[in-house]
Amino acid sequence: MFVSLEGVDGSGKSTQAELLANALGPETLLVREPGGTEAAERIRALLADPSVELDPMAELLLFCAARADLVRQVVGPALKDGRDVVSDRFADSTSAYQGGARGLGVELAERLSDAATGGLEPDLTVLLWIDPESAASRSGGEDRFESQGLEFQVSVANAYEQIAVRNAERIVKVNAEGTPEDVHARVMESVGKRVTSNE
Amino acid sequence: MFVSLEGVDGSGKSTQAELLANALGPETLLVREPGGTEAAERIRALLADPSVELDPMAELLLFCAARADLVRQVVGPALKDGRDVVSDRFADSTSAYQGGARGLGVELAERLSDAATGGLEPDLTVLLWIDPESAASRSGGEDRFESQGLEFQVSVANAYEQIAVRNAERIVKVNAEGTPEDVHARVMESVGKRVTSNE
Repeated sequence: MFVSLEGVDGSGKSTQAELLANALGPETLLVREPGGTEAAERIRALLADPSVELDPMAELLLFCAARADLVRQVVGPALKDGRDVVSDRFADSTSAYQGGARGLGVELAERLSDAATGGLEPDLTVLLWIDPESAASRSGGEDRFESQGLEFQVSVANAYEQIAVRNAERIVKVNAEGTPEDVHARVMESVGKRVTSNE
Repeated sequence: MFVSLEGVDGSGKSTQAELLANALGPETLLVREPGGTEAAERIRALLADPSVELDPMAELLLFCAARADLVRQVVGPALKDGRDVVSDRFADSTSAYQGGARGLGVELAERLSDAATGGLEPDLTVLLWIDPESAASRSGGEDRFESQGLEFQVSVANAYEQIAVRNAERIVKVNAEGTPEDVHARVMESVGKRVTSNE
């Protein structure tokens, strides 16, 4: 099973990805995007560097390049070996951030991401849902995205909402307010439902 | 006018690009791909690093990301200002190397490159044509591509040949054997013909 976690900055994705991977067992592969290979980590460093002026389309293609490398060298082989994979962000992040909030178009972002992954999609995507304002107060970082301000995060949230509607069979919205344990319980409920419906 | 120079490694592109840019006058912008912006130069360093294992699709997308950044931040604005631009490699390199020789498909490479450039194409592409074997003896470097051996360069040359047939109205094949001055004279003849046919 391949599960991705999505949401605005500060929605608790990394914590929930870790809790979910632990709950699925020791064989589970936990990855974060962009990253997970040498090239993808170097792309991540470039993307996060606020001193580099980067065209939005170049940004989108860099995320796709990192994803292609991760999928073909790490995620694909793990799934082939029958392991569960949990990814902290995946293609929907590109659709929401670059496609939606940066204005390049969700459809274009999906098309390029699809070329990058060869069509690999998560079996389930958990969209951690939180008011962008309270997420902003949780988010500590100051990278290229976190420093964009509340208006940008609201655009991202709106784009996520549209993407969730368009992909209702894959994306489950989960309330991300409350303690990490509360949220984890809700995530596990979504995963359990998906496992049951697949049986 | 926007002119790109293409050809296998060792075909003399960089020398000819410089000679052409000088001939077109001091206002001419000379760029090389990948490169020409801070992000694109960092992408170039990653692509050229033989110690990084890179998936072919990730490689293709990195070239496209560098191209997006260069086109939108440098080439597009220069053309808008009425300047001539000479590019040492452009989209056809991605089609020939990643699309053709790496086996990802020329059409996919064209489609992704087109997304990166927003459809910007050179007015004229000079394909420097040389026997891959004599090109290999000229090529001094040992980066990821030059170290692929003769068989790879032959695949690249074959792909270029197909791309030239498919884009006969844009791509002119120029014999690249002989002294740099001989080749430059042939390049100038092609450029002159294109200018005349556009008047």
